[in-house]
Amino acid sequence: MEVRKPYDIDSLTDVALRVFAERGYDGATMDDVARAAGITKAGIYHHVTGKEALLARGLDRALAALQAILAEPAANRGRAAERVRFIVRRVAETACSLLPELTVLFRVKATSPATESAVERRRAFDRAVARLIAEGQADGELSTAIEPGLATRLIFGTSNSIVEWYRPGGALKPAQLAAAIEALLFEGLGPAKS
Amino acid sequence: MEVRKPYDIDSLTDVALRVFAERGYDGATMDDVARAAGITKAGIYHHVTGKEALLARGLDRALAALQAILAEPAANRGRAAERVRFIVRRVAETACSLLPELTVLFRVKATSPATESAVERRRAFDRAVARLIAEGQADGELSTAIEPGLATRLIFGTSNSIVEWYRPGGALKPAQLAAAIEALLFEGLGPAKS
Repeated sequence: MEVRKPYDIDSLTDVALRVFAERGYDGATMDDVARAAGITKAGIYHHVTGKEALLARGLDRALAALQAILAEPAANRGRAAERVRFIVRRVAETACSLLPELTVLFRVKATSPATESAVERRRAFDRAVARLIAEGQADGELSTAIEPGLATRLIFGTSNSIVEWYRPGGALKPAQLAAAIEALLFEGLGPAKS
Repeated sequence: MEVRKPYDIDSLTDVALRVFAERGYDGATMDDVARAAGITKAGIYHHVTGKEALLARGLDRALAALQAILAEPAANRGRAAERVRFIVRRVAETACSLLPELTVLFRVKATSPATESAVERRRAFDRAVARLIAEGQADGELSTAIEPGLATRLIFGTSNSIVEWYRPGGALKPAQLAAAIEALLFEGLGPAKS
């Protein structure tokens, strides 16, 4: 008989987030989570009040990780342009390392108090980056061709999209992927337009 | 009493795609589609065999639009780098104009013959673009910093992500958004790295 460490709320959240990322939160049921965990639904409800509580914990992890990036020294020291680059790189790395959490965050819709709060925290993160881009533009170190809010949306569109295809443990390492994203978004793929 | 033109398969597909884009295909039910259309489920089944058939029609529309871009003269004449730029611009414009169709395509998973075929057609589109990027790199007109397959994924990650937030009819016009995406991906946001 297999002996497995009993689930706690954190390890159940791990399982639930993988299920939500795979099937979509709306499409996933607590039966799916129970099946993936290999325990009964009653076993899950022993730890957590329901699907929404598991989602809320996952969103909290994702948002705490993003907010931690903004608190890192390199996001707070030096020229705005370099700080933006650092943040973009770290968001990409975080998307690789917290893949199910970020997948769920990037897809979440504000349909309840918990998800509204998550969407608002994510918007606050985006606004902080948009302010830094505006500062880099004012410094003359970032292109003014794109309005800061739109640039922020597109930048995170690029890095967020990796959750759709990135598979941890493959040949492409998180740091390589982050460097490629930084190169594409800041240097661009092409020479100056003719 | 409101008089509405009777539904046909195309107008029902319009309704179904908006529902799928809004709720996710897995989360959406034929009851949701019937409610959005304001007719009975029986009324829908008069036109179509089921949810998967509506999805297949939507995926066909999206893929036909993408393939039509590759068939346009500007995608087939001139330098590879300029052809890639044209395709990126047109994909962004198409994402704006066929928003529900592209939303559904970008999220679809290969779980049935129809969705497997759609995913394969989308991959063929990506491969065609990756070949053009490789050609532009060989010409010395596109940066070699990023491998063509990864560049393709990231480029379409950026343009595909607009389906998550773009709202037609707003201040930001499709051509403006497409130009911003082209500027970001080909010129980059920042000056050369220090």
